[in-house]
Amino acid sequence: MITLSAFRWVPPLAQGLVRDFRVRWALEEAGIPYQERLLGSGDQATAAYRALQPFGQVPAIETGDLKLFESGAIVIHIAERSEALMPTHPNGRARTSAWVFAALNSVEPHIQNLAELDLFHARESWAPLRRPTAVEAVQKRLAAVENWLGDRDYLEDRFTAGDLMMTTVLRILRHTDIVSDRPALKAYQGRCEARPAFQKAMADHLKPCEAKAG
Amino acid sequence: MITLSAFRWVPPLAQGLVRDFRVRWALEEAGIPYQERLLGSGDQATAAYRALQPFGQVPAIETGDLKLFESGAIVIHIAERSEALMPTHPNGRARTSAWVFAALNSVEPHIQNLAELDLFHARESWAPLRRPTAVEAVQKRLAAVENWLGDRDYLEDRFTAGDLMMTTVLRILRHTDIVSDRPALKAYQGRCEARPAFQKAMADHLKPCEAKAG
Repeated sequence: MITLSAFRWVPPLAQGLVRDFRVRWALEEAGIPYQERLLGSGDQATAAYRALQPFGQVPAIETGDLKLFESGAIVIHIAERSEALMPTHPNGRARTSAWVFAALNSVEPHIQNLAELDLFHARESWAPLRRPTAVEAVQKRLAAVENWLGDRDYLEDRFTAGDLMMTTVLRILRHTDIVSDRPALKAYQGRCEARPAFQKAMADHLKPCEAKAG
Repeated sequence: MITLSAFRWVPPLAQGLVRDFRVRWALEEAGIPYQERLLGSGDQATAAYRALQPFGQVPAIETGDLKLFESGAIVIHIAERSEALMPTHPNGRARTSAWVFAALNSVEPHIQNLAELDLFHARESWAPLRRPTAVEAVQKRLAAVENWLGDRDYLEDRFTAGDLMMTTVLRILRHTDIVSDRPALKAYQGRCEARPAFQKAMADHLKPCEAKAG
């Protein structure tokens, strides 16, 4: 059985974006059951949790002898065990990995930078001055993704873990009109989010927060 | 034969940091020969190159039928073929992948953000105001890596592709004293950079620039 770490509660601006969601979605696509380990305040800083997740973040998983962290590594680990997330041919597997890394290393850093500016630093004097170049960096990467997609439904010739990861990265822009202003990219994100596994995983991701609020 | 894309020339502030170096180092560790495809100005924007690398960046590789991009995906692809970069046990392989993702998604975004501020935006009015929180974000991740290392020589019980990637990420701070001010981290970086494969790959990485300058 896989045990997945997640937060017992996060503020509304983070609900639906915390990285345990990526793993939940992958597990739903793969049809693999799991249990939660919910972290309360202070749990992230403990030596016991740092031994599982060196940066004190979520997600981490424990399964048998394996302790694994980083949403990218966990999603790839799951994808390698399910044709729902990765083709069987070695080249298709490598291409899936390329898009997972592209989402996390070529696209997310710029999107995350903008989101942190807007959500955590908006009242600081430098934020409005920095914002135009931060937006420009995001637009440059989104134009590249949109250009690559062309009239494809997915980044490759079928849905893969690469699309799963890219979708979760695009969602970080939900407080802006940046994706909405690119109809092809918006349609791509919507196509991925319409998947039953996305819907189920999102409901389970939000459940601890709703339980605590309720 | 593997063909690796790299730049014919980059300015001194980028020499030794461009991401093709990561792939060269991995190939040297694995003992796999390769040839270069050197890009001149304008080549990155062509449709032909974008078909190989959707973001117009380096590196990309071509090998047989496979076109692969993203330094993380390429290094993992090579590591899966060489025990020099990844243990044979499945858990050890997953842990290697975790550290490659940690370097690229938990550490590099903060380091790259600081480097871009210092190297490309230093004269803008917002830069000195933004810098303290950018440094703080870097220090938080470096403290976590240093704490994880403790008295280990490497991130796991032997050198892996995770150390290779983390080293190339730490190098992006070379214009600062941030790593030097952490002796254990500095020693770790030095240990990885002392490897013969690092030295050979760095010489080959710098060669095109030297040839053009010379």
